[in-house]
Amino acid sequence: MTLPLLSQLEHSDARSLRSDLVAGLTTAIMLIPQAMAYAMLAGLDPIIGLYASTLPIALYALLGTSRQLAVGPVAMVSLLVASGIGAIGAEDPAQVAALAALLALMVGGIQWGIGAARLGFLVKFLSHPVIAGFTSAAALIIGFSQLKHLLGLDLARSHHVHTLLLQALSQLDQVNLLTLAISGTSIALLLGLKRFAPRFPRFLLVVVGGTVLVWALGLEASGVAIVGAVPGGLPALRVPELDWATVLALAPIAITIALVSFMESISVASNFARANRYDIDADQELKALGLANVASGVFQGYPVTGGFSRTAVNGQAGAQSGVAGLVTSAVVVVTLLVLTPLFHYLPKAVLAAIIMTAVFGLVDVKEARHLARVSRSDLALMGLTFIATLTLGIEPGIGVGVAASLLWFVWRTSTPHVAVLGRLANTTIYRNVARHPDAEITPGVLALRIDAPLYFANTAFLKGIIDRHLAGQDVHHLVLDAKAIGSVDAQALDWLAQLLESLERQGVTLWLAGVRGPVRDALLASGLAAAIGVEHFVERVHQAFDLIPAGEVRSFSDRLRP
Amino acid sequence: MTLPLLSQLEHSDARSLRSDLVAGLTTAIMLIPQAMAYAMLAGLDPIIGLYASTLPIALYALLGTSRQLAVGPVAMVSLLVASGIGAIGAEDPAQVAALAALLALMVGGIQWGIGAARLGFLVKFLSHPVIAGFTSAAALIIGFSQLKHLLGLDLARSHHVHTLLLQALSQLDQVNLLTLAISGTSIALLLGLKRFAPRFPRFLLVVVGGTVLVWALGLEASGVAIVGAVPGGLPALRVPELDWATVLALAPIAITIALVSFMESISVASNFARANRYDIDADQELKALGLANVASGVFQGYPVTGGFSRTAVNGQAGAQSGVAGLVTSAVVVVTLLVLTPLFHYLPKAVLAAIIMTAVFGLVDVKEARHLARVSRSDLALMGLTFIATLTLGIEPGIGVGVAASLLWFVWRTSTPHVAVLGRLANTTIYRNVARHPDAEITPGVLALRIDAPLYFANTAFLKGIIDRHLAGQDVHHLVLDAKAIGSVDAQALDWLAQLLESLERQGVTLWLAGVRGPVRDALLASGLAAAIGVEHFVERVHQAFDLIPAGEVRSFSDRLRP
Repeated sequence: MTLPLLSQLEHSDARSLRSDLVAGLTTAIMLIPQAMAYAMLAGLDPIIGLYASTLPIALYALLGTSRQLAVGPVAMVSLLVASGIGAIGAEDPAQVAALAALLALMVGGIQWGIGAARLGFLVKFLSHPVIAGFTSAAALIIGFSQLKHLLGLDLARSHHVHTLLLQALSQLDQVNLLTLAISGTSIALLLGLKRFAPRFPRFLLVVVGGTVLVWALGLEASGVAIVGAVPGGLPALRVPELDWATVLALAPIAITIALVSFMESISVASNFARANRYDIDADQELKALGLANVASGVFQGYPVTGGFSRTAVNGQAGAQSGVAGLVTSAVVVVTLLVLTPLFHYLPKAVLAAIIMTAVFGLVDVKEARHLARVSRSDLALMGLTFIATLTLGIEPGIGVGVAASLLWFVWRTSTPHVAVLGRLANTTIYRNVARHPDAEITPGVLALRIDAPLYFANTAFLKGIIDRHLAGQDVHHLVLDAKAIGSVDAQALDWLAQLLESLERQGVTLWLAGVRGPVRDALLASGLAAAIGVEHFVERVHQAFDLIPAGEVRSFSDRLRP
Repeated sequence: MTLPLLSQLEHSDARSLRSDLVAGLTTAIMLIPQAMAYAMLAGLDPIIGLYASTLPIALYALLGTSRQLAVGPVAMVSLLVASGIGAIGAEDPAQVAALAALLALMVGGIQWGIGAARLGFLVKFLSHPVIAGFTSAAALIIGFSQLKHLLGLDLARSHHVHTLLLQALSQLDQVNLLTLAISGTSIALLLGLKRFAPRFPRFLLVVVGGTVLVWALGLEASGVAIVGAVPGGLPALRVPELDWATVLALAPIAITIALVSFMESISVASNFARANRYDIDADQELKALGLANVASGVFQGYPVTGGFSRTAVNGQAGAQSGVAGLVTSAVVVVTLLVLTPLFHYLPKAVLAAIIMTAVFGLVDVKEARHLARVSRSDLALMGLTFIATLTLGIEPGIGVGVAASLLWFVWRTSTPHVAVLGRLANTTIYRNVARHPDAEITPGVLALRIDAPLYFANTAFLKGIIDRHLAGQDVHHLVLDAKAIGSVDAQALDWLAQLLESLERQGVTLWLAGVRGPVRDALLASGLAAAIGVEHFVERVHQAFDLIPAGEVRSFSDRLRP
């Protein structure tokens, strides 16, 4: 296999490489403060965010199939890391860092394994409404988790928005006003510049401005929390200890992070691939992300993935290939070697402001509005996931969402849409009489269309419907339009056999129109096709009516007439 | 609401009441030893089986909608009770009895609640293959659990067949030969009489024979285990203590029993209702069974339900209404008042033989053979449930079965059947070219039929298929036969919008044939119908071909010709 980066560079020239260089630099300027902020969000030392932005980014640049995707620490994954490590109850910074690295190694292993096993399709069970609900709730949790840094309060860690709010309210008199001024100004600058001067390096501005301000005025003495001593130099190779009990305890969160981070990454990558007319390979993406996370795990980092906002910046700045990622990674390396002493006076409130403004946009009101218009049930699923994530927590929340969306689908197909068909005047077309009130119903003949695969969960429902339609009516022929029946299982075959028997007892002949190949195979194998009689299988509904003896139909209608 | 029994008696006469009397008596003769045996299987004193056969049976007779269903202790539920109480680790007989009664109360409450909420349909998620696999495994577990009584060994309680077998083998030298002779003879008589003289009261014979033999020869002194002192009199009203922690601990098994016992009951009741041409009401059945279980719970009983074998006997003996059940219940009351001293010398080996022969028939080889013929995937589900129940245990086993059958359904619809359509010569019928190799494909036009609802889990798969079919072909029209698409969700709508956009970029026009009402509504609400263009919606596939400009189609075919 050739390195994906090499095939990306096939048609590159000096111009595209210069474009990559600019994009890589621009992204790095955004990445460095974000990486530190997100590490803080994950409950880690800010430096760990930078460690996770060295080799992992370079590896993805070499192995990934997206030309624009900007990999590194992201808000959602950082929150999941905080939640997972918090659940274990680790407090000591060195131990927390070791757990975060182990988590990255596990996430990488899982992602690589899913990619190598070509199981990338697994993510399809995370539907858009579930992701939107989960992301919106996570954004709120992330936002409120930064209250302590924004206000300079000493709040206990919690993933419950109301707990954080209540704590903050009860300590309102202890707010550090200087800290509040710094975070307020930072938020205003970040939002204002994003709106009115989107290409201005706003992250650089607030980081440099905040740091210089604190250093020049000695604000740390007045209670403004600062990042403090940041060790210089590159991360060291330190393979996390694989303690079996810890691995087991981290397994659920590692699986969640592996899937959520891949999901985020693949959606961003797909969007940019579509816009730039190239293809991405989901399984190769998983392997590339997996190896990036493994690298993060063994070089003192924590889980990374491709993020929304930085990829957008990378793309807008002109990234044409993974070379942009290599440049970003190199800038972070230089920063680690030379610039870390400068971060000493960086106020934590600035980092919190960066997180806060980044997650504002993740509360997906637009998707909720869209769903309200096209599908109330999907809106309900989004709402359920949102509420479950806020109240039950991050991992149970997404679990509830996935389970509910699968059950909802099963539920829907277990009470399928069934239409009574009537003939449109002067045609051979049979349509739902509920939608076409003028469609003619032939007396003595009941024509039904079932719009779902037949399987164990809907046979009882269908029996009820058919019984209701037959009850008290003088019906001698039942025509089932089977075009929308994509499959039958064994229980549905048993049910059809019972239906046939009960119809025979009632003197009703069964006709089947447009039976699909797979269904026909099952009917043949079970002997049901012979019991129904091959002469009762027709291609189209009207053909059944053509075959029903005319005298028979007429006699019913005569009887029905006064 | 009138009492269901009263409406059953509307057309009754002296003859039908006499028939009920005979059936009730016959069933009681079978029930009394079975109830004692099943209570033993549940790890309870045999008398508790009789207690559970008094008021609960009478209540069901008054409230149930089945005219033949014989309610009382059954093997499967008894095994579940043993498993649930065993998991709590209770040992003291009084405590075990209290837990069993509490379980009956909880099961009753759950069943009544499901019935009152009209949620009886919930049982449809237990598919036949899952029930068959579960029942077969449970039958083996039940059968082997009786080894200790059949051989007179002191085996430790276990729900693992291999553990029980290994234990028995290691103690083979300690087998009590007298016990073995009694159980061997009982099994031979029960099976032989069932085969050759099915109407002979075989249960009465082995119970009376075994008791007389032990009493006359003083066999209990030689190590033949007997039932021992059985307290006389009716059960007392004793409401179980509702300790919250215990209720929570029993909740999963109570839910399992509530569903499994209703499932068993409703299948039997439905079979007899179908054969005797009357209707049963699932929700009323749940309420009746629920109240029977509540009564069992407050009168020192344990969970009951309608069973396969006794209902068959009741029906064959001529039961016409719930009066048969009232008679059965009265016979049990008389037995409790007068006959309990006679059970003192009843050998446990006889009760074990009754259980053993009852469950032989539950290993459902016939269903496995049937499934092998009609549906391999359903056979696999049955096998999976069977193995999971044997290895993981009773409750996880059925859980694995239900989850696997739902996931399998989702999985199948997430990789739906897609057919390329071609025109059958000299017709307007378009069929799957894989099944009709002679069907003509029009060059430049790709006609596809998707046989599943469109939803979040299958859009990625369908995108792959459509991309593959379009790749490298000179296609200018895509005709989607949408007749088998029963529904679309929000994600599928997004996907269709993207598909439309990508088709437009490739210069491909999209046509939709036979779009269903609910799908059409969703397309209209989302604005997609307008984007596709109403003129591209047709009723039948051939109409799309009729509308495609003839010159356009010809020019493609010309280009394809050498």
